[in-house]
Amino acid sequence: MSSIYGENLKLSIFGQSHGAAIGMTLDGIPAGLPVCESTLQFFMDRRAPGNNQWSTTRKEPDKPVFLSGIADGYTCGAPITAVIYNQNAKTQAYRQLQDCPRPGHADYTADVKYGGYQDAAGGGHFSGRLTAPLCIAGGLCLQWLNSMGIHVGAHIRQIGPHQDTAFDPLFPQLNQIGTGFPTLSESAGLSMQKLIAEVKADGDSIGGAIECAVTGLPAGVGEPIFGGVESRIAQIIYGIPGVKALSFGLGEACKTAYGSQCNDPFYWNDGKVMLQSNNCGGILGGITAGTPVIFSVTVKPTPSIAKAQNTVNLSTGEAATVSVTGRHDPCIVPRAVPVVEAAAAIAVYDMILGNTQTNRRK
Amino acid sequence: MSSIYGENLKLSIFGQSHGAAIGMTLDGIPAGLPVCESTLQFFMDRRAPGNNQWSTTRKEPDKPVFLSGIADGYTCGAPITAVIYNQNAKTQAYRQLQDCPRPGHADYTADVKYGGYQDAAGGGHFSGRLTAPLCIAGGLCLQWLNSMGIHVGAHIRQIGPHQDTAFDPLFPQLNQIGTGFPTLSESAGLSMQKLIAEVKADGDSIGGAIECAVTGLPAGVGEPIFGGVESRIAQIIYGIPGVKALSFGLGEACKTAYGSQCNDPFYWNDGKVMLQSNNCGGILGGITAGTPVIFSVTVKPTPSIAKAQNTVNLSTGEAATVSVTGRHDPCIVPRAVPVVEAAAAIAVYDMILGNTQTNRRK
Amino acid sequence: MSSIYGENLKLSIFGQSHGAAIGMTLDGIPAGLPVCESTLQFFMDRRAPGNNQWSTTRKEPDKPVFLSGIADGYTCGAPITAVIYNQNAKTQAYRQLQDCPRPGHADYTADVKYGGYQDAAGGGHFSGRLTAPLCIAGGLCLQWLNSMGIHVGAHIRQIGPHQDTAFDPLFPQLNQIGTGFPTLSESAGLSMQKLIAEVKADGDSIGGAIECAVTGLPAGVGEPIFGGVESRIAQIIYGIPGVKALSFGLGEACKTAYGSQCNDPFYWNDGKVMLQSNNCGGILGGITAGTPVIFSVTVKPTPSIAKAQNTVNLSTGEAATVSVTGRHDPCIVPRAVPVVEAAAAIAVYDMILGNTQTNRRK
Amino acid sequence: MSSIYGENLKLSIFGQSHGAAIGMTLDGIPAGLPVCESTLQFFMDRRAPGNNQWSTTRKEPDKPVFLSGIADGYTCGAPITAVIYNQNAKTQAYRQLQDCPRPGHADYTADVKYGGYQDAAGGGHFSGRLTAPLCIAGGLCLQWLNSMGIHVGAHIRQIGPHQDTAFDPLFPQLNQIGTGFPTLSESAGLSMQKLIAEVKADGDSIGGAIECAVTGLPAGVGEPIFGGVESRIAQIIYGIPGVKALSFGLGEACKTAYGSQCNDPFYWNDGKVMLQSNNCGGILGGITAGTPVIFSVTVKPTPSIAKAQNTVNLSTGEAATVSVTGRHDPCIVPRAVPVVEAAAAIAVYDMILGNTQTNRRK
Repeated sequence: MSSIYGENLKLSIFGQSHGAAIGMTLDGIPAGLPVCESTLQFFMDRRAPGNNQWSTTRKEPDKPVFLSGIADGYTCGAPITAVIYNQNAKTQAYRQLQDCPRPGHADYTADVKYGGYQDAAGGGHFSGRLTAPLCIAGGLCLQWLNSMGIHVGAHIRQIGPHQDTAFDPLFPQLNQIGTGFPTLSESAGLSMQKLIAEVKADGDSIGGAIECAVTGLPAGVGEPIFGGVESRIAQIIYGIPGVKALSFGLGEACKTAYGSQCNDPFYWNDGKVMLQSNNCGGILGGITAGTPVIFSVTVKPTPSIAKAQNTVNLSTGEAATVSVTGRHDPCIVPRAVPVVEAAAAIAVYDMILGNTQTNRRK
Repeated sequence: MSSIYGENLKLSIFGQSHGAAIGMTLDGIPAGLPVCESTLQFFMDRRAPGNNQWSTTRKEPDKPVFLSGIADGYTCGAPITAVIYNQNAKTQAYRQLQDCPRPGHADYTADVKYGGYQDAAGGGHFSGRLTAPLCIAGGLCLQWLNSMGIHVGAHIRQIGPHQDTAFDPLFPQLNQIGTGFPTLSESAGLSMQKLIAEVKADGDSIGGAIECAVTGLPAGVGEPIFGGVESRIAQIIYGIPGVKALSFGLGEACKTAYGSQCNDPFYWNDGKVMLQSNNCGGILGGITAGTPVIFSVTVKPTPSIAKAQNTVNLSTGEAATVSVTGRHDPCIVPRAVPVVEAAAAIAVYDMILGNTQTNRRK
Repeated sequence: MSSIYGENLKLSIFGQSHGAAIGMTLDGIPAGLPVCESTLQFFMDRRAPGNNQWSTTRKEPDKPVFLSGIADGYTCGAPITAVIYNQNAKTQAYRQLQDCPRPGHADYTADVKYGGYQDAAGGGHFSGRLTAPLCIAGGLCLQWLNSMGIHVGAHIRQIGPHQDTAFDPLFPQLNQIGTGFPTLSESAGLSMQKLIAEVKADGDSIGGAIECAVTGLPAGVGEPIFGGVESRIAQIIYGIPGVKALSFGLGEACKTAYGSQCNDPFYWNDGKVMLQSNNCGGILGGITAGTPVIFSVTVKPTPSIAKAQNTVNLSTGEAATVSVTGRHDPCIVPRAVPVVEAAAAIAVYDMILGNTQTNRRK
Repeated sequence: MSSIYGENLKLSIFGQSHGAAIGMTLDGIPAGLPVCESTLQFFMDRRAPGNNQWSTTRKEPDKPVFLSGIADGYTCGAPITAVIYNQNAKTQAYRQLQDCPRPGHADYTADVKYGGYQDAAGGGHFSGRLTAPLCIAGGLCLQWLNSMGIHVGAHIRQIGPHQDTAFDPLFPQLNQIGTGFPTLSESAGLSMQKLIAEVKADGDSIGGAIECAVTGLPAGVGEPIFGGVESRIAQIIYGIPGVKALSFGLGEACKTAYGSQCNDPFYWNDGKVMLQSNNCGGILGGITAGTPVIFSVTVKPTPSIAKAQNTVNLSTGEAATVSVTGRHDPCIVPRAVPVVEAAAAIAVYDMILGNTQTNRRK
């Protein structure tokens, strides 16, 4: 079902980019879990558009207002609903788009599906702005995961030709991710920012890749076949606008790998079974293996660009060109980093809520 | 939920590799759809292990027996259940594995999750053999899609260093896929087969990639956010054992692409809106754009290899080595091609069943 | 999952009686359906507490505010979210209840389940106030059903010893239901109102029964076994606080009926198959038969009464008595009538959205 | 979705009355649970048609054959699939019915929905025979519930004018139910059997009511609103063919009850909160209260009767009469008793699997 995710928790995302509000309902969360709103706001602010050169100039405080589900700072067992009231909506900038769909955007497909009744302003329900409620839900799940010793962190792996250091597959350096521009290598981050500025000046946009790691997960989480960890993460990651590729562990490199290289041998360490490497990305048969879950996400360049592009005028039936003059990110990748973390946290917390593990047979 | 897939149809997969039977139930299919069992068997045979050098020597006819849901050659509205009775089970070969998990397999993670109660023979419920019932369901959906003018085809894109010709993104050459070894280029296919034979002789295995295209889909199919076409396909594709990467359209190449290159411009053709290119892989905002849906799947090398690998003995707590002496494929990729087609067909048919499209506003 | 309903549409209810807001999200609704807010408000007002003698004195305008999903008076394809901001909350009246659970209420069971973290004020998420968002969703579904020629109407069938005229099973008199007090017989309604006034003066409460009919449904709607019309209606009706019995058609009278009396014979009328009677309540094998769907709902007396009742003090571990001094309905039945209509409308619209019907075999 | 039930476990029922087999898949069950097949067969035999005068003469051993999910007598974590191969199918007896729908049966509604493609023999997927796989699933759940100290028992409460003793609401006499004819009072049971014999001789059928109790459930099980215990039980109970009414606790008697009578006061007993009565049927706000869950189910008279009834001939468009000459129960109520127990066990076990309970706030 469209805008609902989860097997044990149920996350429902609602709202349009320039409507009254965007928000989310998170159902199925146990009562008695603490909620720190300032920690949540800190997380939200990582996604929020700012004054830097790599993001839109639309100013939105993105402050969640909780309508239900929290009492005295704890979850109360009822569904948690939080909204963000839209404040800086500028629907005029989008008038043209209703007629002339932006290439690479959902304008055209939404128009076909909804017959012209869709809320086209700013991409409506398809806007990247809808990742803000995803971050509310993810930010909450992150707090609860952290208290269980489970951590989620992501960094920019690549933008254009500039690559960041990769995570160590067994010991991902979550604490070395830059707090401003999220890379492990500061110099790689500076190269990326320079490129983004150039791309912006050129009226264009650029894609990139994000690497994400989940540490502290015990072995045995996940379900067989369609309920595997990869399936559950994939469903939500592909819900983030602009994602076009997702891989786990060795990923696409598997196509040139031999089994003798790719398999991760087991060994004993202090009475515990360990993996000598983590080519599997922490998942075997859809179930966690005890090593970090590591995956990579490729994000396409923002489709909204100032450069003129060919399109059609749906009203007149004539050819047209469109140059997107609204406020847009020249590269969505930096702001997508916390969104990927949020999505991962939701997927992982959902699986933990429903996890059953059998005591060892004697 | 573990072994169930679908929003409108519900596919449930059951069975273990060396149990009495494997099978599937497909619920929610309309009545009155014709079922051709010989067409289905032809499709099943593409996945079935054969006498060639690239697959296991386990002989299984993989003949579906329908227990319900079909009357007089048509679906009757009741759930469709079909089973394949296991005939050539050899559980002895797996005795050792209960104690010594095979690296790269689900043996260890299943043991942790199920506490030793899992059916370990041949990987049990985690075996690649469970893709046979997936092919029953997919083979049925393919028949019904074909009658609507929708076609699904896949080919091996790469094994080791050997690459097949890529699909033309706008006009994928489904009818040029080889009927024996599924490549577009016969010479690329021969190189791949030669490599597989070498890898087998060496007691090793090799991974690869599969490219799949769905043609004939109208624009407007799919749902926003978590119900997008990518999300729905990803959930089922990652249910296939060994899949470690999935990408749509330009895929990972997006990370070095500019928006001005990556966007697919629109134009008019005979009163219809068309895309000049198909970098989006047929999907914009999670909804089909009218161009072919094209995606790539990377499959890891079969973890079961004859070469000795380090593992642990879970009973004795000592280090161990394992050399898998059962009957295994040196490269699972050729047999995975119809499985990817089946998974795509199920996902697409599920979306079509639930598709709502609004008549154009006047 | 707790607060979510529906197979094709997905209704999510959130909020607590004395929290910031109560509301609902309705996902999966096609785009392009008109929404008349004044018709909706008229429907909401039937449930809203008023100045009459049979309802609480808590004044709440119960005006839905739409946050998303509607553009220019039509559904836009995105999830529809509407909230009602709570205005007349008086949490003080409920202080005592956190310690001393009201007999017949969810105070105690919520306390056990949520460990004391529940929002106890006014019953929190368990309050009858949560039927207001149900009426938003139901009021919308009713508008869309009406445009298809499907109508839903309910009346009070009984309060205490006073019985209203029953619906004619084949031609339920929807247009004869009183607009003030919802009975078919005005005199029966007056007797009921007199009884409610007496019960209120006595500090007590009284139960009753509601009869509901859905007309205009074609034959063939519903699914076998767990997806039958009775199952779908039952799940949502039992989600209304205080419902303790539900029956279809002849209902409990079936226990003394013979098959030769109970079966509804078929006959031809102008080329159409008709039923001579409607003992089945419009449903055979879980699927609509073309006659009106008719069911009866029994609602228990409001548990909140002024009379002193024995309870426990959960803090002190001592016996206690509780006399509920908040604002409560002496009989919830009149206000539950539109709630039953709303629930029926949601269930029916959900089934229609997912209905598949096969063209006749030749 | 039609033939699937459950939030945490997923039960899928398949098969047609005179097809190759009927069966069920039960997914989501933890590994390591013991399965006693002889205890299950004993339970199945209570439903199976026998040599007594109150059931059909169709002889079916109803022996479940497990295809998957069980290894060495324990659940292995994989989906559990069991089938019953149909042995005594007589499709000839049903030829007439394809054209002339039996009043009170699903023949007509199935024909409308499936356009004539349904498997009409013996009611196909709508047959009461489909309650056999429900009993497989329920019989398994019962075993696992019993090991947790939770017991489920049902008896015939009424057939025609003959009433059995009612359960003591706080201490239902599960161990006093007759092992042959399931009543508490032997004399009431004899009167009922005599009536059934008379009805049979008359070519007619008779309805009745069943009372069911679940003991040993802790307080706190269930979810708010649509996930309440009543909603969950109602969905599955209404999946049993012929059920037309369902009530909990006082049930329909609530319509004449006062709050001061109906509420169940709380008291302390040895440091535990207790209810002085059980008018709520063990459920408050959809959540278990610690008292037995008690509900009543009304079953309509078997629609298949020997007496001639008016119907239509769908082929010729003429009026017709039908006299059902197949093998049918004159009263389905005795055989429905274990079916009601099975349904209750599945619903309760499903809720327990997903139950979350918060530790008490300090």
